[in-house]
Amino acid sequence: MNKNICFIDGLEGILKYRDVDINELIDLPYDAVSYLLIKGELPEEKELAEYSARLHAERGINREVMDVIRMCNLNIDSMEALLTVVSFISQFDPDLYDNSLEGNMRKAIRLIAVVPTIVAAYYRTANGKEPVPPDPSLAHGANFLYMIKGSKPDPLEAEVMEKDFILSAEHELNASTFSSRVTASTMSDLYSAVVSGLCTLKGPLHGGARSEVMTMIETIGSPENAEKFVLEKIEKREKIMGFGHRVYKTYDPRGTIFKQLSRRLAEAKGDMHWYETAEAIENAVIRELVEKRGKPIYPNIDFYSGVIYKYMEIPPQLATSIFAIGRISGWIAHCFDQYEKKKIIRPRIFMLDEC
Amino acid sequence: MNKNICFIDGLEGILKYRDVDINELIDLPYDAVSYLLIKGELPEEKELAEYSARLHAERGINREVMDVIRMCNLNIDSMEALLTVVSFISQFDPDLYDNSLEGNMRKAIRLIAVVPTIVAAYYRTANGKEPVPPDPSLAHGANFLYMIKGSKPDPLEAEVMEKDFILSAEHELNASTFSSRVTASTMSDLYSAVVSGLCTLKGPLHGGARSEVMTMIETIGSPENAEKFVLEKIEKREKIMGFGHRVYKTYDPRGTIFKQLSRRLAEAKGDMHWYETAEAIENAVIRELVEKRGKPIYPNIDFYSGVIYKYMEIPPQLATSIFAIGRISGWIAHCFDQYEKKKIIRPRIFMLDEC
Repeated sequence: MNKNICFIDGLEGILKYRDVDINELIDLPYDAVSYLLIKGELPEEKELAEYSARLHAERGINREVMDVIRMCNLNIDSMEALLTVVSFISQFDPDLYDNSLEGNMRKAIRLIAVVPTIVAAYYRTANGKEPVPPDPSLAHGANFLYMIKGSKPDPLEAEVMEKDFILSAEHELNASTFSSRVTASTMSDLYSAVVSGLCTLKGPLHGGARSEVMTMIETIGSPENAEKFVLEKIEKREKIMGFGHRVYKTYDPRGTIFKQLSRRLAEAKGDMHWYETAEAIENAVIRELVEKRGKPIYPNIDFYSGVIYKYMEIPPQLATSIFAIGRISGWIAHCFDQYEKKKIIRPRIFMLDEC
Repeated sequence: MNKNICFIDGLEGILKYRDVDINELIDLPYDAVSYLLIKGELPEEKELAEYSARLHAERGINREVMDVIRMCNLNIDSMEALLTVVSFISQFDPDLYDNSLEGNMRKAIRLIAVVPTIVAAYYRTANGKEPVPPDPSLAHGANFLYMIKGSKPDPLEAEVMEKDFILSAEHELNASTFSSRVTASTMSDLYSAVVSGLCTLKGPLHGGARSEVMTMIETIGSPENAEKFVLEKIEKREKIMGFGHRVYKTYDPRGTIFKQLSRRLAEAKGDMHWYETAEAIENAVIRELVEKRGKPIYPNIDFYSGVIYKYMEIPPQLATSIFAIGRISGWIAHCFDQYEKKKIIRPRIFMLDEC
């Protein structure tokens, strides 16, 4: 197994999962990327078929889980419901207290499979619609869109959804992954470690950024308003959502792919409006911050993904949960690594400032 | 406000919350210690009365919360239920998305007040008993015992419970507190940060240790078996539960107080059996590891607290939740500090080995 779960070169803009470049991974099914992250190697064709079959078989939720989903009554943000329900379902897992590699692998498959179903079921019931059961014949991205929208998705939208999950799957020690590792370091079970990741991803400075990008682009409204908005933000020394990254000091490679995908969607839909608005914002930021001021502030993963959701009519409230559906494979890969270390993460207070 | 939430001198065995020594804090009400941790200073008499009144008024849970508690069906470990329910109740908090200091203070009071009620209600329903509503006239420790047992507690037991919560309230960047901070660093809400702490505390290497101490003491059974057990553990190079600490290299000051409390309980009950069994284990460990091998392995917070639960007839399944009831004030104090920093905790991978 390749031990490097993730490699990031923030100066060159390179991202690899288990030593495979993100530009190669992007054309695989999400299941293959998930397998790579968790097991350390890309699957052979037969291994992938088996893994996908197990994932697709574990997508269902029982009636008690559905009851709790109906009791969650939050229209604002679907993450609270996801936290509650992922905690709740742990009681139905016969392997909950089996911390062997095999037991954890079974839990991993159940978690990766069921989280999209929980998100979609909550989304539909919170909007007064009946939940749509998962379709085991569909891939991860297509099935999620199907459960959200209630009809078989357009092939391009399904492809974009699949690639979104791949791009969101892993990113080294971002705060949510680190949080999952801290939880796993006490040998807490995998459900708790995933819930810990969800709690952290939920914050507006982390997974919450995508929905704020959507709101920002809607507020700006059209390309000709972009420059004024960006200049005002810079003058007030305010952060522009979807730009800049702690690690990348050049174009985020995920941002590049998301930009291409959003362009393809815009062209396919014959409506360049939101793409061009976003591009005008990007151009203004690059001219003002990168070129004039020499600051390495480029679009990050959250910027063009926000544009994609606009075209796919995915509401901002779902953006963070979609991030979670992708990222869960990365959290689990890190937890497995942490379980092997058998060492509690317990920094001293002075280390806080170094993170 | 005193910014040092916690001070530990692991060589001298000193522990202070906000610069007040644990040996002074131990005679205060838990509410005063909670106030000190969260607000940074000890309350005046009137301030304490107001704070306690607010805490005592926020102890109740509504019918939906009770329904979810009844749907949690785990006899093994009460922590899964606690995770689920603390996530679930966030939807009833009108301040959920108010991240001002005032909004967070209101959430803090609700969380500190309601967690004991959730633990007790789950414990009673899981054992086929009707839940006991909180009694606003009782202090934090007494009220918890009342909700667990259904009758007004013995004054000594109530005092011991109160002191247990104080001793468990804060301990710098232990894994669960660190996890809460990582969650809060993304500006995630206080409920999520507390859930993250619960997820991490739950692990057997952290909060799970107390129940393992109880099982160990029961297995050893009586003082004359202690030496043989300790020698076998040392020969097999296995960890002895309840001994040793990453930070303390001398007697854990909390361990000293817990030892005194367990002795008082034993004497009051006229039954020295479990106390003497524990002391025989301690003596064997100190002779074999400290004196003969020069290793600084002393009883930690989990050792004599396990003895106390035996005398108070608190089952091992509740031990971690009781730890959580105490620790929540510390988690919240650290979250408030983290919110002020407005900086995401995002270490690089090489930093993992330094924690």
